[in-house]
Amino acid sequence: MRAADIIARKRDGIALSAEEIDFMVQGYTQDTIPDYQVAAWLMAIVLRGMERQETIDLTMAMVRSGERLEWQNIDASVVDKHSTGGVGDKTTLVVAPLVAAAGVYVGKMSGRGLGFTGGTLDKLESIPGFRADLSVEAFRAQLERIGIVVTGQSAGLVPADGKLYALRDVTATVDSLPLIASSIMSKKIAAGANGIVLDVKVGHGAFMETEDEAEELASLMVHIGTKMGRRVRAVISDMNQPLGHAVGNAVELQEAIATLHGRGPLDFREHCLTIGTQLLLVAGTVEGTSDARNELENLLDTRRAWSKFREWIEAQGGDLAFVDEPERLPSARFVRELPAPRTAYVAGLDAREIGLTSMLLGGGRAKKGDTIDHAVGVVLHAKVGARVEKGEPLLTIHADDEGKLSGAQQRLLAAYDWSDEPVEPAPLIHKVIGQG
Amino acid sequence: MRAADIIARKRDGIALSAEEIDFMVQGYTQDTIPDYQVAAWLMAIVLRGMERQETIDLTMAMVRSGERLEWQNIDASVVDKHSTGGVGDKTTLVVAPLVAAAGVYVGKMSGRGLGFTGGTLDKLESIPGFRADLSVEAFRAQLERIGIVVTGQSAGLVPADGKLYALRDVTATVDSLPLIASSIMSKKIAAGANGIVLDVKVGHGAFMETEDEAEELASLMVHIGTKMGRRVRAVISDMNQPLGHAVGNAVELQEAIATLHGRGPLDFREHCLTIGTQLLLVAGTVEGTSDARNELENLLDTRRAWSKFREWIEAQGGDLAFVDEPERLPSARFVRELPAPRTAYVAGLDAREIGLTSMLLGGGRAKKGDTIDHAVGVVLHAKVGARVEKGEPLLTIHADDEGKLSGAQQRLLAAYDWSDEPVEPAPLIHKVIGQG
Repeated sequence: MRAADIIARKRDGIALSAEEIDFMVQGYTQDTIPDYQVAAWLMAIVLRGMERQETIDLTMAMVRSGERLEWQNIDASVVDKHSTGGVGDKTTLVVAPLVAAAGVYVGKMSGRGLGFTGGTLDKLESIPGFRADLSVEAFRAQLERIGIVVTGQSAGLVPADGKLYALRDVTATVDSLPLIASSIMSKKIAAGANGIVLDVKVGHGAFMETEDEAEELASLMVHIGTKMGRRVRAVISDMNQPLGHAVGNAVELQEAIATLHGRGPLDFREHCLTIGTQLLLVAGTVEGTSDARNELENLLDTRRAWSKFREWIEAQGGDLAFVDEPERLPSARFVRELPAPRTAYVAGLDAREIGLTSMLLGGGRAKKGDTIDHAVGVVLHAKVGARVEKGEPLLTIHADDEGKLSGAQQRLLAAYDWSDEPVEPAPLIHKVIGQG
Repeated sequence: MRAADIIARKRDGIALSAEEIDFMVQGYTQDTIPDYQVAAWLMAIVLRGMERQETIDLTMAMVRSGERLEWQNIDASVVDKHSTGGVGDKTTLVVAPLVAAAGVYVGKMSGRGLGFTGGTLDKLESIPGFRADLSVEAFRAQLERIGIVVTGQSAGLVPADGKLYALRDVTATVDSLPLIASSIMSKKIAAGANGIVLDVKVGHGAFMETEDEAEELASLMVHIGTKMGRRVRAVISDMNQPLGHAVGNAVELQEAIATLHGRGPLDFREHCLTIGTQLLLVAGTVEGTSDARNELENLLDTRRAWSKFREWIEAQGGDLAFVDEPERLPSARFVRELPAPRTAYVAGLDAREIGLTSMLLGGGRAKKGDTIDHAVGVVLHAKVGARVEKGEPLLTIHADDEGKLSGAQQRLLAAYDWSDEPVEPAPLIHKVIGQG
């Protein structure tokens, strides 16, 4: 087998065999196929596409590039969730302990924020002492002991993904459904969960900007996971405006803690209940949607999810004083309210712009490896559909620098659209795909 | 400007600006853009294509990557020819001295054979002492002194082409009209000729297998050259069966020498007269086609072209004893005739198979850098349309190895198609494109 011939076949739009795909993936991982051949191959995949079987074979080849975890010796169902990335998406912080409190184990390897979207690990690391670099052994031990663990991606799992992603990033080959789906699903499969819920964001603040793209990606990933013997469901959820009110790191953690106390923004609580319900369905521990929802609401309102959260944070070294008194979390030098510029209904609230503003304040990374400031961010007081009076607080900016603060003000004001007539916000949940 | 953005634009089918193309080409030549980015870009070009203006801009960028020759101080017209590569294509060996004998200067940088096609330099190097590695200074001096020079590509001209071609070869990005056209034309433009004739081969023994592809490439190259102020014509000529009778190195040189004596196969003589006529037309030294043809026939038949050939070979160090007595050129250990297997008309004669057989005998290179055996090859006695009697000599194999000889016999027999009815061969010249 020769790499050049495999590239030529994909260039000509021919479906590749499992062996050909495996040859490319293992060859690249083991440095026997050079990056320039893989770059040409990736571009051919972007422009010619892949059939579903090829995408499954690519996913399997990526899984085979490294170690994989197995949870047969655990009695409970082990589930995992993945979000394609959004602004204000702190769902894991609530849903993981919520579902774990229902007796379903959550074992998750998570990512860091990049560009205009935040990452769960960055938000967790607002808590002094919290460790997100667990070994595979520590991951397993904690999962078995308390039924919940969230850590960074282990280098031993799917090494092909890290290499391929770095190459895709500099060769304009990121935008491709088969490449996106195989990257996500290979990591989920290798991490061993039996039940997987995919939160596919759609809208201007998401990677998938149209309903069609989001649905295609969701259904492709559900198909891959199902073919690999996992129970997979996908939720297509709105990302035209940010999720919840807080966008940043410590501010999002505070919002998650409020939600675990039965408070918090209604849209965010609703989103957590939806994702949690799907997780219980794939775990097979409930009869149906309404059972699941009742159980989860109860776990939130009785603070049993909150107790599980504390157990989790403590297990990973986090100082509980900071979650018990979340006002002690890192706070910014400047906390300034931005008044509404007019009396009107909020008609639009550009999630991408809000995310970029948080990044520019220092709360996110423009490129991999940038350090982030946990204290900064934005808290919205009025979302789409709300009516505001001119001069009333529209949002609060948390900044560590006067210059960045005033830049953020301009940018945030421009992120709003206004209407004199009442406005109906887009539905939060667009669609659910897959059977439990 | 960022390479990744330029790749993304081409990926999305957007026409690139001259600046963007230049950025990629100079960046690659100067090692500031890595090969994996260029590989992805090339694949995007293969699959998205390039507009004519982009192809012109790519050609110009490649020319700018190195030095370029200028012939303003020479009184005569300087012309150049290029063949896209065929089997038995020894045209330059006859046409260059023929046109030079007509007072039109021929300054040509030529290539070596690769795969099933032979190269002019390999054929010339059958002559002991012949040097094909002239410096730019020696090239200029010889052109000014005797009006004819043929040497290898100078490393100083179009360095981008060598780098890009090596990368295309291993990334399945060779097959692309804009990349092929810009590679050929950049070298012709940089070498400075004012008049250029392109011999675009079409058929099973050529890179362009269909009439449409050949015509598209020819018209694209004529367009590029014309836009750059050169006089360019293209001849689309048949390469379903080999050109002339001899396929190899010394055997082709012998056939060229016979043709320069007014003998030689009629199809090959005809082809040389056609290309020569086009060269005189782009040089502007003749009134029209019939003038040119009369002059050239006369130069062949009076052996003035032959005298110019001797002058040329001597100037480049070749030992004239070997061209004056061409039977002294390298000869093979085994020279064996293959008898016709039946009495019939030759209906087909697969040029690609004949070329491959010559390569396998040792007369060509499977890959760059392979050494070649000048003595081996094949001489055909019956071409398409000829009637042969069973047992009469069909062709002669020149081999240095018994094993290769018998392999060649099998292969060559299989390269023939037969018919009981008379067969009309395809026309030699399919089309001429461009105005003088």
